Amino acid sequence: MTETAQPLWDELIIGPTVVTLTESADYGCIPDGAIGILDGVLTYVGPAADLPASPDRLAHHVVYAEGTLTPGLIDCHTHLVFGGNRANEFAMRLNGASYEEIARAGGGIRSSVRNTRGADADHLLAESLPRALDLLHDGVTTLEIKSGYGLDLDTERRMLQTARQIGALTAQTVHTTYLAAHALPPEFDNDADAYIQRVTEWLPILHAEGLVDAVDAFCEGIGFSPEQTRRVFEAAQALGLPVKLHADQLSDLHGAELVTQFSGLSADHLEYTNDEGLMAMARTGTVAVLLPGAYHVLRETKQPPIARMRELGVRMAVSTDCNPGTSPLLSLRVAMQLATTHFRMTPLEALQGATVHAAAALGLSDRGQLKPGLRADLALWTVQHPDELTYWLGGNLLQNLWLAGHSLQRRERAPRL
Amino acid sequence: MTETAQPLWDELIIGPTVVTLTESADYGCIPDGAIGILDGVLTYVGPAADLPASPDRLAHHVVYAEGTLTPGLIDCHTHLVFGGNRANEFAMRLNGASYEEIARAGGGIRSSVRNTRGADADHLLAESLPRALDLLHDGVTTLEIKSGYGLDLDTERRMLQTARQIGALTAQTVHTTYLAAHALPPEFDNDADAYIQRVTEWLPILHAEGLVDAVDAFCEGIGFSPEQTRRVFEAAQALGLPVKLHADQLSDLHGAELVTQFSGLSADHLEYTNDEGLMAMARTGTVAVLLPGAYHVLRETKQPPIARMRELGVRMAVSTDCNPGTSPLLSLRVAMQLATTHFRMTPLEALQGATVHAAAALGLSDRGQLKPGLRADLALWTVQHPDELTYWLGGNLLQNLWLAGHSLQRRERAPRL
Ligand SMILES: [Zn+2]
Ligand SMILES: [Zn+2]
Repeated sequence: MTETAQPLWDELIIGPTVVTLTESADYGCIPDGAIGILDGVLTYVGPAADLPASPDRLAHHVVYAEGTLTPGLIDCHTHLVFGGNRANEFAMRLNGASYEEIARAGGGIRSSVRNTRGADADHLLAESLPRALDLLHDGVTTLEIKSGYGLDLDTERRMLQTARQIGALTAQTVHTTYLAAHALPPEFDNDADAYIQRVTEWLPILHAEGLVDAVDAFCEGIGFSPEQTRRVFEAAQALGLPVKLHADQLSDLHGAELVTQFSGLSADHLEYTNDEGLMAMARTGTVAVLLPGAYHVLRETKQPPIARMRELGVRMAVSTDCNPGTSPLLSLRVAMQLATTHFRMTPLEALQGATVHAAAALGLSDRGQLKPGLRADLALWTVQHPDELTYWLGGNLLQNLWLAGHSLQRRERAPRL
Repeated sequence: MTETAQPLWDELIIGPTVVTLTESADYGCIPDGAIGILDGVLTYVGPAADLPASPDRLAHHVVYAEGTLTPGLIDCHTHLVFGGNRANEFAMRLNGASYEEIARAGGGIRSSVRNTRGADADHLLAESLPRALDLLHDGVTTLEIKSGYGLDLDTERRMLQTARQIGALTAQTVHTTYLAAHALPPEFDNDADAYIQRVTEWLPILHAEGLVDAVDAFCEGIGFSPEQTRRVFEAAQALGLPVKLHADQLSDLHGAELVTQFSGLSADHLEYTNDEGLMAMARTGTVAVLLPGAYHVLRETKQPPIARMRELGVRMAVSTDCNPGTSPLLSLRVAMQLATTHFRMTPLEALQGATVHAAAALGLSDRGQLKPGLRADLALWTVQHPDELTYWLGGNLLQNLWLAGHSLQRRERAPRL
């Protein structure tokens, strides 16, 4: 530590290309940049050349770095707390089994519900924590985690508690979303309305326990109707909780429009969303969360209306949708690559989608860009240009990560080899 | 170390599910298995219950493990030694640039040739080594590396020397392939025959330097003709070197048949291969190397004839094709996942394709399965079932790796937490 009575910074990072993402039309790169952190917040973002003379006398720690520094990535749509996995169904499908055969063999979402209900808190954490760590080691500093494999009060609670615990253990910011309206549990077969009634009754209980940051539903022919979704949203609204929606993934039920009527944070999937829905989203600032992992695994061919979203200025986020059935993705960078190949998003859009727009999808304005006053959530990558973050598929590109200014791996004053 | 005069094993691994891959129709799993290693070779593969009593007295080191143990993965088709990268072209294409515009901007394979020629040995190693390490940390213990971005004697030599150096530094087995017939260098514009003449003259020089394990060519409308390919193969044959071929990727030039006429190790890509080619491959035992990364990135729609290969018993390998233009893949598991989603291979076929069949594609019979007498190249994964290796996309699933019996991370006698 340098002996200075009042350092300007707890930590100063000098040298990398700093990707600010403060403009919508480009990366906002600062070559040979510098970042100053005080109390977990960015207080300097600019060229290293503009720092005061002998900057290392003004900081407790100085990191000399090469490569590319971006905001920490934000995964704004995951279902990563669950028991078991569905690799066996994945293999069955590839061996020619039909969805019906898989369902008869006890597969599908009900298999995840069974395994999640059967997992006690320790097991659920032991199974789910490595997934959050995989995201972390690929640059994710903030993530959303949904409930929705419990479908009863106790298990939905345990899922949300597990999500909170993951945040405490990894130091990632975890936003929790109550998604009891994910599927109909077996004990409510043929009585979706009665189940939705329960969903609305459980919400205030879990909210009072501090477990709910937002509310979601699966609005689809095979999920819940727009009317049922509306009842869930009204329950959320009564508690002042923001809403989001699994909307228009497999058919157009006007889900995007519905979520805008509640000033929703995001509408997610959107493969079948119509123009009215998109225009409504543009009006309300609802973020489009694109989930190319499910599109990839399900071999869908109907792409979300990306070009129209661009035209209308609808912000596009990209997320893993990490879940055991349709999107077993353990890397947000993989989702970004799939967004370019499958949806023709640009590498810039993919990175904005995993940072600034993902922050908006979670209602967070304190992160997702690099500028003074924002939270010091940072990812330092080995690459020379941010395009490479989507170009490379796989690989360990992360050098270091800061969560509210705390680095996973502090290197003091030593130039990187 | 246990005090025994003559231990049976240098290392004994006890506990995981051992995936032997010794049968063609299933994984050959041994639950609660054990592996004994002596002098870098497997000398016990079987149930832990069948070990002698007090097995820890019979081994220098004992590792108690959970999870799944497979043969070390084998990546039998890579171009991972190159200078620069082409993320900028990737971004240009997604921003709407045509291939012509990219070529006019100095892009395409010639950009990689320029950057590889411009990189001295140190730079080439510094750029390429991390890619081999990325593969290593995702389970790859053996890989093939091709030349083909030099297209002159000095740079082809430097590429192959770099490949050898990577093997020495990572302890991975690196097989080198001479691929000077990859593209026409600018100094031979409009004179492919004269270039092929040089290619055949350089081969014995580099072979005499111990740099060449096999010979490859790019036989395609935009590459070299079957007749030019034949000349390269004849030069290889004269030296007793095995051949392989980039065959029928974009059109059917009967490349697969051609390679079988030289008893080639493998025919690679094969999207457009016709039935005669497949039948010839079945006759000669030539392995089909499938490269779903390029198919994915190029958004191809013509799939290689997988079903027919199955019918004919053509062995199928899967590889990253790691290269800067069409397949910037840094993970063989990603290639395995893409092989399932895009080509409908099963998880078992994908794993066989990255182990036993990949070994065959390199002419190696001492690895790719787990049975006594084979080399102790092993990958220990956190997963419970081998299907998960292709099911999960991304993530750090590797617990430990053994290269000829040397583990990256030795844990003695301590049960894993
Ligand atoms: Zn989802
Ligand atoms: Zn290739």
